[in-house]
Amino acid sequence: MTKKMVVFLMVAFVFIAILYSNVRADEGMWTFDHPPVAYLQEHYGFTPTQAWLDHLRLASVRINDGGSGSFVSPDGLILTNHHVALGQLQKISTPEHDYVTNGFYAPTLQDEVKTTDMEVNVLVRMENVTDRVRAAVKPGMTEAEAYRARKAAIARIEKEAKEKTGLEPEVVSLYRGGEYWLYLYEKYTDIRLVFAPERQAAFFGGFSDNFTYPRYDLDFTLLRVYKDGKPLKVKHYLPFSPRGLKEGDLVFVSGNPGSTDRLLTVSQLEYMRDVRYPLILDYIRRRLKTLHAYAAQNEESRRRATFLLMALENALKVLDGEYQGLKNPDLIKKKRKMEEDFIKKVKQNPDLAKKYGNLWENISSIVKLQREKAEELFYRDLRGSRLVSYALILARYHEELKKPDGERLPGYHDAELERLRFNLLSRAPIYKDLETLGLRDWLTMVREALGPDDPFVKKLLQGRDPDEAARDWITRTKLDRVDYRRKLLEGTEKDVRSSSDPLIQMALRVDPMLREKIKWVEDNIDAPLRDASEKIAAARFAVYGKTIYPDATFTLRLAFGVVKGYPMNGTRAPYKTTLFGLYDRAFSFDLKGEYTLPRRFLDRKDQLDLTVPVNFVSTCDITGGNSGSPVVNRKGELVGLIFDGNIESIPNQFIYDDVRARAVSVHVAYILEALDKLYDAKRLVKELRDAAMKMGVDWSAHGE
Amino acid sequence: MTKKMVVFLMVAFVFIAILYSNVRADEGMWTFDHPPVAYLQEHYGFTPTQAWLDHLRLASVRINDGGSGSFVSPDGLILTNHHVALGQLQKISTPEHDYVTNGFYAPTLQDEVKTTDMEVNVLVRMENVTDRVRAAVKPGMTEAEAYRARKAAIARIEKEAKEKTGLEPEVVSLYRGGEYWLYLYEKYTDIRLVFAPERQAAFFGGFSDNFTYPRYDLDFTLLRVYKDGKPLKVKHYLPFSPRGLKEGDLVFVSGNPGSTDRLLTVSQLEYMRDVRYPLILDYIRRRLKTLHAYAAQNEESRRRATFLLMALENALKVLDGEYQGLKNPDLIKKKRKMEEDFIKKVKQNPDLAKKYGNLWENISSIVKLQREKAEELFYRDLRGSRLVSYALILARYHEELKKPDGERLPGYHDAELERLRFNLLSRAPIYKDLETLGLRDWLTMVREALGPDDPFVKKLLQGRDPDEAARDWITRTKLDRVDYRRKLLEGTEKDVRSSSDPLIQMALRVDPMLREKIKWVEDNIDAPLRDASEKIAAARFAVYGKTIYPDATFTLRLAFGVVKGYPMNGTRAPYKTTLFGLYDRAFSFDLKGEYTLPRRFLDRKDQLDLTVPVNFVSTCDITGGNSGSPVVNRKGELVGLIFDGNIESIPNQFIYDDVRARAVSVHVAYILEALDKLYDAKRLVKELRDAAMKMGVDWSAHGE
Repeated sequence: MTKKMVVFLMVAFVFIAILYSNVRADEGMWTFDHPPVAYLQEHYGFTPTQAWLDHLRLASVRINDGGSGSFVSPDGLILTNHHVALGQLQKISTPEHDYVTNGFYAPTLQDEVKTTDMEVNVLVRMENVTDRVRAAVKPGMTEAEAYRARKAAIARIEKEAKEKTGLEPEVVSLYRGGEYWLYLYEKYTDIRLVFAPERQAAFFGGFSDNFTYPRYDLDFTLLRVYKDGKPLKVKHYLPFSPRGLKEGDLVFVSGNPGSTDRLLTVSQLEYMRDVRYPLILDYIRRRLKTLHAYAAQNEESRRRATFLLMALENALKVLDGEYQGLKNPDLIKKKRKMEEDFIKKVKQNPDLAKKYGNLWENISSIVKLQREKAEELFYRDLRGSRLVSYALILARYHEELKKPDGERLPGYHDAELERLRFNLLSRAPIYKDLETLGLRDWLTMVREALGPDDPFVKKLLQGRDPDEAARDWITRTKLDRVDYRRKLLEGTEKDVRSSSDPLIQMALRVDPMLREKIKWVEDNIDAPLRDASEKIAAARFAVYGKTIYPDATFTLRLAFGVVKGYPMNGTRAPYKTTLFGLYDRAFSFDLKGEYTLPRRFLDRKDQLDLTVPVNFVSTCDITGGNSGSPVVNRKGELVGLIFDGNIESIPNQFIYDDVRARAVSVHVAYILEALDKLYDAKRLVKELRDAAMKMGVDWSAHGE
Repeated sequence: MTKKMVVFLMVAFVFIAILYSNVRADEGMWTFDHPPVAYLQEHYGFTPTQAWLDHLRLASVRINDGGSGSFVSPDGLILTNHHVALGQLQKISTPEHDYVTNGFYAPTLQDEVKTTDMEVNVLVRMENVTDRVRAAVKPGMTEAEAYRARKAAIARIEKEAKEKTGLEPEVVSLYRGGEYWLYLYEKYTDIRLVFAPERQAAFFGGFSDNFTYPRYDLDFTLLRVYKDGKPLKVKHYLPFSPRGLKEGDLVFVSGNPGSTDRLLTVSQLEYMRDVRYPLILDYIRRRLKTLHAYAAQNEESRRRATFLLMALENALKVLDGEYQGLKNPDLIKKKRKMEEDFIKKVKQNPDLAKKYGNLWENISSIVKLQREKAEELFYRDLRGSRLVSYALILARYHEELKKPDGERLPGYHDAELERLRFNLLSRAPIYKDLETLGLRDWLTMVREALGPDDPFVKKLLQGRDPDEAARDWITRTKLDRVDYRRKLLEGTEKDVRSSSDPLIQMALRVDPMLREKIKWVEDNIDAPLRDASEKIAAARFAVYGKTIYPDATFTLRLAFGVVKGYPMNGTRAPYKTTLFGLYDRAFSFDLKGEYTLPRRFLDRKDQLDLTVPVNFVSTCDITGGNSGSPVVNRKGELVGLIFDGNIESIPNQFIYDDVRARAVSVHVAYILEALDKLYDAKRLVKELRDAAMKMGVDWSAHGE
């Protein structure tokens, strides 16, 4: 007889004491207009000057593929992560030239290769426009009217700024409506590939090691910004530091954290935990299942699916980590305690109590509506295919452009049109087989969730089978051709409406219902939530003063912290790893699977100094979007390159932790060792060295 | 204003799905008379022959310091862990010769150094004596009478066996009373030190890495058994395997797991969780606090405290891990489910229901009494000092020896006296300052817990201050002198009673109350529990057949499993580590603290093959006491040396897990590489090679 065996996973050493701290930690993604100067002075004896801040800001870039980077030479050379540039590497690769697998090195300037649709932004100016946005809201307006008035005002400000400055404008809502700022960017779109290591070196350990530490990744790429066909000359760039890093060193991160949810109310977090995350996780898991089967077919399908698979696996690991964080009862408990403290302080002041006292209840009742409608709203949508999203843009484009700027759907404002066109007309290859898979999955899920008799499903499928419809539409569509998309974009509304393209027809068919949904969400969810969260922001300023930082908004922020190991799985994780560790992990897995090494790593092993630091961790407060951010020391010298957070940092989405959560960076010493000894990229080593020396850095300390 | 920051530790990726499995896993610590032959054949196509089993058993040794080992040459050479031999290394070290820090190598046979009080046992014969033990219990006896009758029968059996065979006898209660076996050991006490690496190599990573993996420890020592002044000749020894290990390889562990609690009832586990563990953990934490302060005083105090600190830190990490395991609600839930299944099956059979149906309730009511009395029973005791334990032995010795063998306290039976004398007369050094600390701590805790007016406290302290009493007694006692202990041992009861030694007087004062306690516990806890657990064992055999293995009893067991990595902290732990990893971890911590390396590791780095495997993990079911156990392959060749479990394996105390729990071993390739290239121990490399070749092992495959 066999005995039923139960297997359990231990929690020992995980539920270590929950720590409260009266001392504020190295927390925060601070805007450059409001850095935590007093804290830095008090705790680290360091006061950044305005020049220090301006230099760091102007040397930092935002990359529209969803990452960050920095200038590292006066000739427009940009350092970012390999995984930030991966989409571009994928797009310019062909079956003959696989830059993803084999890497890329341009031995001369002339060999640098243009990326297809990368855009780089430098934040050159910031202006507080809170009063102008607020002024648009007149007494007596409903929440929905106020919501639209604000949006119209924002579109006006952006349009005006663009006309006046020629810069790329973006009005950013900070503190969830507490402040509005006009950010003006210098925008660059001629971005060329200079150097990329093999993906296996950049992403050593693959999805298994992703979001974990200790780590051994060469996750960097060098790009160059061109203007008028020539390398861009920049004054503000970060010199590579020849100095090492010690445990305890103060470091700074300048980058664009994508999004956090630290200022949400408890009822909002509970909604995400109970409804939102389960919906999204289910979607991703189903997509991944199909994609893995597709990728397993042959070498070419694997190549085609690589980027999407990686993006989805990444998303799954992080979203599931966030979900598990929300399910940790301690998190909600702490959040509730903080919220209760806040509400108590509001209610203690009669004036505040009157203005803000019932905000939390208001939000709870909006959340209740969100819960009820969540599934319907999630599935009344178009997802899973780039071609379908092109179709929807074209179906809407001419109609939107007829409207006044302020009344248009998001993405169709005057200031956004250039980017819309840039994306729509991207020459990045489209694989119809992959598109079919994605659309089929989505149609199947929608019909399952809403039922075949749902009006949206009827409009969408017209009684057809999801599999058959997806196959038919994708086969027949001509939207994979850039010239056809251009023709419709530059044509008239009538051209679009009369197009026989099946995806255009489908998009036109369902668009009215999608617009209805968008309006419903605006009126019933977004507008009242925005109203309430603006008031909560005001209440927070009133109670705590402006001692806080805003939630992340994929705009430039300054984070700081110390280089520091942490307690891990019963022992300690070191503050850095070394090249010894790269080889250990590779040989520990017998050089198999995600732990293979590019040939040159084996051939040239004996030429390397294996004590060279590879990756390191710090307490800097970062999140997705910070990928590629420079890490600098007090002198503003580049010491590292953010590329990940450890697994313990994922619930930082909701609350900061400096006990075990860490930002993971590539050490500059590894980049230099690799360029020099593994890749013979002498031209780049020289450029980086000359750039550093031009900034007055004593390069002779290199290798210290 | 500072914001209160809450820090939380994530549980994401820890509460991975709890897995049930219908297939029995690589579970079990099997007695050599009852190996899981059918399972091995079915799952691994391997059937161990009787000769294979006998050879492995006779090549295995138990070490009375609390570990295991194996013969590895025909000349009595024994391989065990450095940490098993550490107590002996400590005892033979002096301020001039610190074998712990510097290691030891006897370049010739004549240089091998005798240990002070090590004992090695080989299990040469096993006999089922269940019927003889049971026969001692007559109808109509109370539980307490039955308990004593059983004990008397066991003492008789042991005494008789010793007289008849000259072997060391031990009646082992298996399945918590389900079976009784007479184990007969060949006993050796002339054990000499042959080789030990520096502790920093053996215990690299120190307490931080202890009980974790990935790991990089050279945790081995070579000893030699002597008989009549000459190396013992043995027929059964394990040849070092020159073959490597692959992931998935089937391996076996032959060793002496100390104790597990897998057959306890849920109410017993809950008692341990709520009462027993908190008491013990508190005691250890307080002892450690004092000891750390003592060790920090100077170099010599650090040296003196080393072994005790290590033992206590070890105990704390493992006991706290077990405690956290018990606090994991999933564990108790699974245990309850298994118990409910068992009870249901008992109750379904009217015959079994009648005999065994109310056992669990009986146990619950005994446990209730245990809960009430736990604190009082724990503190009515003498702990914290070796000198005090000597005093208690001497205070009892002559009185016990007057009684018939069967009526004596445990430890004083005829068959145990030789060991008692061996321990009491050990020449291991005693440090009075350390003894004072331990006794002071204990006296303080006892008075705090029971109050100054408790009768035991009054008898113990006679109104004196714990600090003052401890200092005075330890200063004045002569029990640190072996000759004085021998004098009292070889003298009469009157000699002891008339001794003016303050510790002897104290022991004589409190002994009557301690005896009262022992009797109370026997009558009210042990006897009824033993009765109930014997019946539960019988019920288990009746319901499930003899498909199970007994809880660990520090007797020889066979475990099996596969070499296999596991999911860890968001990623994967590899099945093995390499020498690259040793250097990575050392340099990652800048060669500081617990991550320093002995000089030779730095000087000879370039002479090593860094791809050599260092440690590896397997699913073998082990626990404390298995330290030093040989790991063999199907051919019975030695491939590794158990030295630890990973942090995830600690709750295996209560339930086996093969998803993440792993046994951690030193790879034989590392031992050979180190002996050869780091320590120049050519004599030993030759002895091991010759021994292997004599067994027919093809050594030319070495280094494969």
